[in-house]
Amino acid sequence: MNLKCLTVVLATAFTSSLSHAQTSDMAVKEDFKPSTLNQPTQEYPQVNSQGYARFKIKAPKADSVRVSLGLGGRGGTKLVKGDDGYFTGTTEGPMDEGFHYYHLTVDGGVFNDPGTGNYYGSTRWESGIEIPAHDQDFYALKDVPHGNVQQILFPSKSTNTPGRRALVYTPPGYEKGTTRYPVLYLQHGWGEDETAWSVQGHANLIMDNLIAEGKTKPFIIVMTYGMTNNFKPGPRPVALATPGGGARPAGGFGGFPKGMLDNGFETVLTEELIPYVDAHFRTYSDKAHRAMAGLSMGGMETHAITLAKPGMFDYYALLSGGTYTPTELGKVKPKLVFMSCGSKENPTGVNSAAVALKDAGYNAVSFVSENTAHEFLTWRRSLNELAPLLFK
Amino acid sequence: MNLKCLTVVLATAFTSSLSHAQTSDMAVKEDFKPSTLNQPTQEYPQVNSQGYARFKIKAPKADSVRVSLGLGGRGGTKLVKGDDGYFTGTTEGPMDEGFHYYHLTVDGGVFNDPGTGNYYGSTRWESGIEIPAHDQDFYALKDVPHGNVQQILFPSKSTNTPGRRALVYTPPGYEKGTTRYPVLYLQHGWGEDETAWSVQGHANLIMDNLIAEGKTKPFIIVMTYGMTNNFKPGPRPVALATPGGGARPAGGFGGFPKGMLDNGFETVLTEELIPYVDAHFRTYSDKAHRAMAGLSMGGMETHAITLAKPGMFDYYALLSGGTYTPTELGKVKPKLVFMSCGSKENPTGVNSAAVALKDAGYNAVSFVSENTAHEFLTWRRSLNELAPLLFK
Repeated sequence: MNLKCLTVVLATAFTSSLSHAQTSDMAVKEDFKPSTLNQPTQEYPQVNSQGYARFKIKAPKADSVRVSLGLGGRGGTKLVKGDDGYFTGTTEGPMDEGFHYYHLTVDGGVFNDPGTGNYYGSTRWESGIEIPAHDQDFYALKDVPHGNVQQILFPSKSTNTPGRRALVYTPPGYEKGTTRYPVLYLQHGWGEDETAWSVQGHANLIMDNLIAEGKTKPFIIVMTYGMTNNFKPGPRPVALATPGGGARPAGGFGGFPKGMLDNGFETVLTEELIPYVDAHFRTYSDKAHRAMAGLSMGGMETHAITLAKPGMFDYYALLSGGTYTPTELGKVKPKLVFMSCGSKENPTGVNSAAVALKDAGYNAVSFVSENTAHEFLTWRRSLNELAPLLFK
Repeated sequence: MNLKCLTVVLATAFTSSLSHAQTSDMAVKEDFKPSTLNQPTQEYPQVNSQGYARFKIKAPKADSVRVSLGLGGRGGTKLVKGDDGYFTGTTEGPMDEGFHYYHLTVDGGVFNDPGTGNYYGSTRWESGIEIPAHDQDFYALKDVPHGNVQQILFPSKSTNTPGRRALVYTPPGYEKGTTRYPVLYLQHGWGEDETAWSVQGHANLIMDNLIAEGKTKPFIIVMTYGMTNNFKPGPRPVALATPGGGARPAGGFGGFPKGMLDNGFETVLTEELIPYVDAHFRTYSDKAHRAMAGLSMGGMETHAITLAKPGMFDYYALLSGGTYTPTELGKVKPKLVFMSCGSKENPTGVNSAAVALKDAGYNAVSFVSENTAHEFLTWRRSLNELAPLLFK
């Protein structure tokens, strides 16, 4: 791991996602519509065509309600109580396009916005809001053949459970065919879990659309929980299906940045999950048909595991998750090294790392997502760029 | 539909789930443990060995916090504020075993408990708590082969979406074999969605365990959203994967009890979903290998659709969802009519309906779940009883 790069990742992980491209004294257009992530029949939160977000929370006897979204340093957006018992407020500027996690502080307690859905981030189920992106078409649900996303429960002796959960995207036609497919192992970020890539990331829809347009070879994607030593008792609070038991391990915080590189996960991935997937799905099980990618902490896991197991993967991708150096790779020549981030993160870092790798004879590609930070639109776009480069 | 029975279903749907088997003046044992559904690292809510539930909510500047669980008529459980800024309280009696939905009222606003997970019920994502059942072994995660639960996105012209979501349980070994399987179409209740049976109901684990013990033939289960005219905009707030679009239909409340029998769903199920499943999974697509079951409103849908389409299903099951009469069935002789409910619902109704059907020459079975009401433990047990009777 390039420590300078890691520092940048840490520093940019929690910056404000308020767009800096527009000033806050612009006139706010009154064309607000319910966020697409809202719970059924819920009118708030809303988003306008400029990317402002407006919130409305019922709490007639509360003294204060605050939304964590907004200018980070100022504690988000303070809502104002009306005579009707509702607190309302609008972000002081447009938000970056894409998905944002948030929560409320109601009279000093942290709660979710009852108007919208819940998404696992920051090691808790957070509220979520979507600012429509100008390029959202690439992850839209379209009238194309759809792959499936299935929950598997694989036995994991190393973590003492008869069923650890992973989600597996199989491309359209998988269920009827006899073809074998390559596999991408795709990891979430710190505080997230195995649902992040298919729910917040729309990984399945991105693949469906790329495949329908002939832009990528069909392949399987496997997404699992990337931590073994913290934060994840057996039953999932919200899930496709609840796998049940699985001991909550003793011991304390094992997250990020403390205990960031979870050696236990390498065992789960390489000794338990990969063999299970190769035994239960029609995969090509050689290095040439296996990729690993991850966002943020998942990128750090990818970095560590690909270097520790040079015989397992032939495609490496770090999405807002650091860089590789020629020295680290040494004699290992993966078919592809992909590094990406948002333009509000460390574009110079990933671009210069790619140049250094190319100068040293590696096949390296960098991608910078315009006008996004350490958030999911960066990673949706990164997957959309990465997929066509895999398994060529 | 037997209207008398329907009335009973309605009347019992929202009764208290506080156990009446034990008095509230018993000594409360101080052996509380975190609920198995809690979010990672969260210590509250807790449950003791008698079934009391204890809550602890941080809201230092709030005046009042109430939990909806408890004696229904009295507005649930009022929490008391401590000097540390936390509100705490314990139900005034033991809760029924099994899963319960609930929410908080904080200074007059409705929020979820940040300590636990979220479950779709009452047309919103609610909090959930699990009171361990004495017979919970049958839905435990065990060291047995596990089936998968997969999201499919099937095109639905009748509801104007290129991808409506269903969840499909495939039994262990499905992915490697060439065998065909019978199919059970299994519906959720009012205010729930297609996630209810696998998340709250543990349908996949119940099947895994029954199959491992040789108690049931392996079969596929298909679970989809049972409403077409309300409450469900395209993107799911919390989901395995987000299918994206799908127009939110114009028009008002189309739920239960108003608009209870959603004719649009019959079209989705029989003309869109079933053909898709038969085309994409290795099913037996004849009547003899197809069952329909549902809980509560899903039972009413089952009742209506099986009678309207007598050529489609050979096994009918209503779980806390009414009864059939010999007059309704007429000359149609399904291989099985299964009717169940909790002992706190209408056991006389389902038992006497089964007697009447048997007297008239039908193969009818009734099942009463002891000491449960209109809640998920009744339906977990019902599925556990039903599955071995199917496709024999």
